[in-house]
Amino acid sequence: MTGVRRVPVQRRFSDLDPLGHVNNVAFHDYLQEARVGLQLDLRLIHGGGFDQVVVKQEIAHRKPLSYSSEPVIVEIWVSRLGNSSYTLGYRIIDELGDVSAEASTVMAVVDPETGRPVRMSDELRAILENARFATATPPPQT
Amino acid sequence: MTGVRRVPVQRRFSDLDPLGHVNNVAFHDYLQEARVGLQLDLRLIHGGGFDQVVVKQEIAHRKPLSYSSEPVIVEIWVSRLGNSSYTLGYRIIDELGDVSAEASTVMAVVDPETGRPVRMSDELRAILENARFATATPPPQT
Amino acid sequence: MTGVRRVPVQRRFSDLDPLGHVNNVAFHDYLQEARVGLQLDLRLIHGGGFDQVVVKQEIAHRKPLSYSSEPVIVEIWVSRLGNSSYTLGYRIIDELGDVSAEASTVMAVVDPETGRPVRMSDELRAILENARFATATPPPQT
Amino acid sequence: MTGVRRVPVQRRFSDLDPLGHVNNVAFHDYLQEARVGLQLDLRLIHGGGFDQVVVKQEIAHRKPLSYSSEPVIVEIWVSRLGNSSYTLGYRIIDELGDVSAEASTVMAVVDPETGRPVRMSDELRAILENARFATATPPPQT
Repeated sequence: MTGVRRVPVQRRFSDLDPLGHVNNVAFHDYLQEARVGLQLDLRLIHGGGFDQVVVKQEIAHRKPLSYSSEPVIVEIWVSRLGNSSYTLGYRIIDELGDVSAEASTVMAVVDPETGRPVRMSDELRAILENARFATATPPPQT
Repeated sequence: MTGVRRVPVQRRFSDLDPLGHVNNVAFHDYLQEARVGLQLDLRLIHGGGFDQVVVKQEIAHRKPLSYSSEPVIVEIWVSRLGNSSYTLGYRIIDELGDVSAEASTVMAVVDPETGRPVRMSDELRAILENARFATATPPPQT
Repeated sequence: MTGVRRVPVQRRFSDLDPLGHVNNVAFHDYLQEARVGLQLDLRLIHGGGFDQVVVKQEIAHRKPLSYSSEPVIVEIWVSRLGNSSYTLGYRIIDELGDVSAEASTVMAVVDPETGRPVRMSDELRAILENARFATATPPPQT
Repeated sequence: MTGVRRVPVQRRFSDLDPLGHVNNVAFHDYLQEARVGLQLDLRLIHGGGFDQVVVKQEIAHRKPLSYSSEPVIVEIWVSRLGNSSYTLGYRIIDELGDVSAEASTVMAVVDPETGRPVRMSDELRAILENARFATATPPPQT
């Protein structure tokens, strides 16, 4: 699928909670790893003249995750691209190919000092353009 | 405000990220602490015949959190109460009294073996009734 | 006890692992919170001209920690104070007053650019002097 | 090297602290992942009639870890094997092949109810025998 990236993320034992499942908080860590995996260069997130921050995030859990030595696959795509903000879609896929969660994030690009929105750099825009997938709904599962 | 509980949650140094702020993932930890703080007894969450699981969660970040030896205050209330599911509202308040984030969670009460919804216990229902606040919108800030 | 500080640290649900206890990794988070609680000002740790880093850390687990709404108390003291490094002792005390773990850390004060040891600031030295406890062995339990 | 296992562990953005390095607490998570990676089956850790718990852990930090999309490699080996306890050695190797940290853990095999030491299962013993490396000192770096 054009635009959709697939980022493998290892589960950790410490992601598990007393219910024996990956705790819901760890899912947000997986989403963050997918964002970083999409952009590769940390200087696009912090230290390169602007900061990227999470404005909104939504997650719907579909199926509990157990521990496995297999990574989960986080599918990630850009569903909206503005000048100083953009929206990401995600699906977290387990070792059986099942969708464990669907999520979306509104990201803002801000001035590190003032926190005010600033125009994103061309380098960031190019990366996001490449991951664009022209729908807000999840892509059909492969 | 009737119904709204205020749960103090300590920040940790390890909640901070390279941007020097509490990372967005840690906010979900704070929400979880507020849920546990509301219910007090872990056996209501796991081990007492049913499990509670997160079905959906939404968060809107309003203001970055820095480190402080002061705890954040997580306001938490029940905005909807069904037989096997309920909805929580939250506001995370920083040491200056400012709203750092607003959030909501749909929780389900499920059978630990099958994962199917089951009727919640009277004990859990009583606790949730006491934290009920009859609106889906956040209460006015104090 | 002169020198020994007592820092309360809240447990979190996400500190628990499938065994139902606070996972061993979270103990290191508690030690870090005690270090930060001793020094109060994050600029003494990073951003004030030098960085503080962990060189060695040892922990001996004495008793498992369960979840409790009571904080653990981390007793922390300075057992050795050099020019660019120092050693901390700790005891983690549970809600019953029992010792859950004993630990020690060798800390170094380094140049943020080169990572080389540098002389600590007078401000940091004064704080550490105040927390000095003249023994490498844990203080008698109160 | 006979006995020594090499377990890749992904770094996460949330492992980083305001100093921009992997926080010391996350190193203990990496050690735990290596332990789990050595044993593969979580029922050997919990739920199979006995629990494995950390008794002592020591770490010496040699070189700070930055973020990288490359995993760290955790070398892990069994340096001592008793009936109800054993000792592990580790080295955490960064993406340049440099040693970032050396560590050791004393593990105990205990009764889940009483916490008392019990004889480990033959299955666990066989796995540990295979990872035995007859020295307490780290193997020469490859």
